[in-house]
Amino acid sequence: MLVYGRNVAKEILKNGKKVNKLILQDGFDDESVLSLIEKQKITPIYLDKSEMHKFDKYSHQGIILYVEDYKYESLDAFLNIDNAKIVILDHLEDPHNLGAIIRTCEAAGIDGVIIPKDRSVTVNSTVMKTSAGALENVKIAMVTNLNRAIEEMKKNGFWIVGTDMENSTDYRQIDYGGKIGLVIGSEGFGMSKRTKELCDFIACIPMYGKINSLNASVAAGIMIYEVIRSKQ
Amino acid sequence: MLVYGRNVAKEILKNGKKVNKLILQDGFDDESVLSLIEKQKITPIYLDKSEMHKFDKYSHQGIILYVEDYKYESLDAFLNIDNAKIVILDHLEDPHNLGAIIRTCEAAGIDGVIIPKDRSVTVNSTVMKTSAGALENVKIAMVTNLNRAIEEMKKNGFWIVGTDMENSTDYRQIDYGGKIGLVIGSEGFGMSKRTKELCDFIACIPMYGKINSLNASVAAGIMIYEVIRSKQ
Repeated sequence: MLVYGRNVAKEILKNGKKVNKLILQDGFDDESVLSLIEKQKITPIYLDKSEMHKFDKYSHQGIILYVEDYKYESLDAFLNIDNAKIVILDHLEDPHNLGAIIRTCEAAGIDGVIIPKDRSVTVNSTVMKTSAGALENVKIAMVTNLNRAIEEMKKNGFWIVGTDMENSTDYRQIDYGGKIGLVIGSEGFGMSKRTKELCDFIACIPMYGKINSLNASVAAGIMIYEVIRSKQ
Repeated sequence: MLVYGRNVAKEILKNGKKVNKLILQDGFDDESVLSLIEKQKITPIYLDKSEMHKFDKYSHQGIILYVEDYKYESLDAFLNIDNAKIVILDHLEDPHNLGAIIRTCEAAGIDGVIIPKDRSVTVNSTVMKTSAGALENVKIAMVTNLNRAIEEMKKNGFWIVGTDMENSTDYRQIDYGGKIGLVIGSEGFGMSKRTKELCDFIACIPMYGKINSLNASVAAGIMIYEVIRSKQ
């Protein structure tokens, strides 16, 4: 994976994550980054401005890193965990939301996260940055077909809890004991129809305003902490 | 307040918020924005590229709006609300977090938000954008001295609940009945020392990972929904 920019670079270098190649623009002089590079004993490759600009997909701020792609788990790794609490992200789009949700999952001790392969944000450099190091401690499985994964979980004793405003139960009235798969819908469209049909329960967070929209990572945070409430 | 960029402009035009002046760059051709301008019966002023570039503080994307500054409430407006639930933001820095917290407060039916005047994010165009319209329905007071405001609240029967990891009580063990002021600390530094001393209770959200850091707006969301739990 190609990663651009000083902040992500700092985060990666601080965490001691393996860097396959590190490219700096001639004259790069950010001392805080340079000292981290030295500490990790990495020999940077220097390129001039015009060569750097061939990597112009994002603003590189004079630094580009090649790091190992994120290593996804297989779904099987989650199926036999006792009282597993798994978070299933139904085609989330915003990498900042994914990063924040990964932080919440890490703090809440969630056993695993499932994301679909297509039409969904995956673990990219923004997610790496936003998750603030939590990524290394959270297991994420990427599946080809989310609904098939949910069916597989149900066969293995999981209760699937979705989130929606319609035909739903107050999120505090649901029993989250046993193996739970919590589905978080996408920012714009919520859960897909077929996924909703697969849910054993549909939970809603009650809202009392006029606009009544929660940021996706905030709603996920409230739900995740409700699911683990029973754990303690 | 000067507001730049197409997304915020769309949000403002959709909400029918009063626009004092609307400036477009010659040749501006974003049909979705133009139709909103027409719908709101606003006559835009056209400037050429070089004149537009005098407003170069942010990237304007060809559109600049002058809108009314956000009208803050006075603290007094909050003091006599029965069972008031007030959110106090102790020098929050990130406008995206403030925007997301405002959305949560709106959905949760929080009676008011207090922010300090100095060394804190205030209601700017990013907050306006991130709060996704919720801003219009949430009362925000800006105070010169946050600790003095908290003392005033305590005199008026408020219990002040802070959030911190040290010397704290599990957030689910606290009684949030009556008038409550919930203090959310800043992203980097948490609550200030003096503010912490003024708290009647210090709550913590239990964490079970290694990194154990929640995004500020996610932590605020979990706390806010716990405070209003007793309401229903």
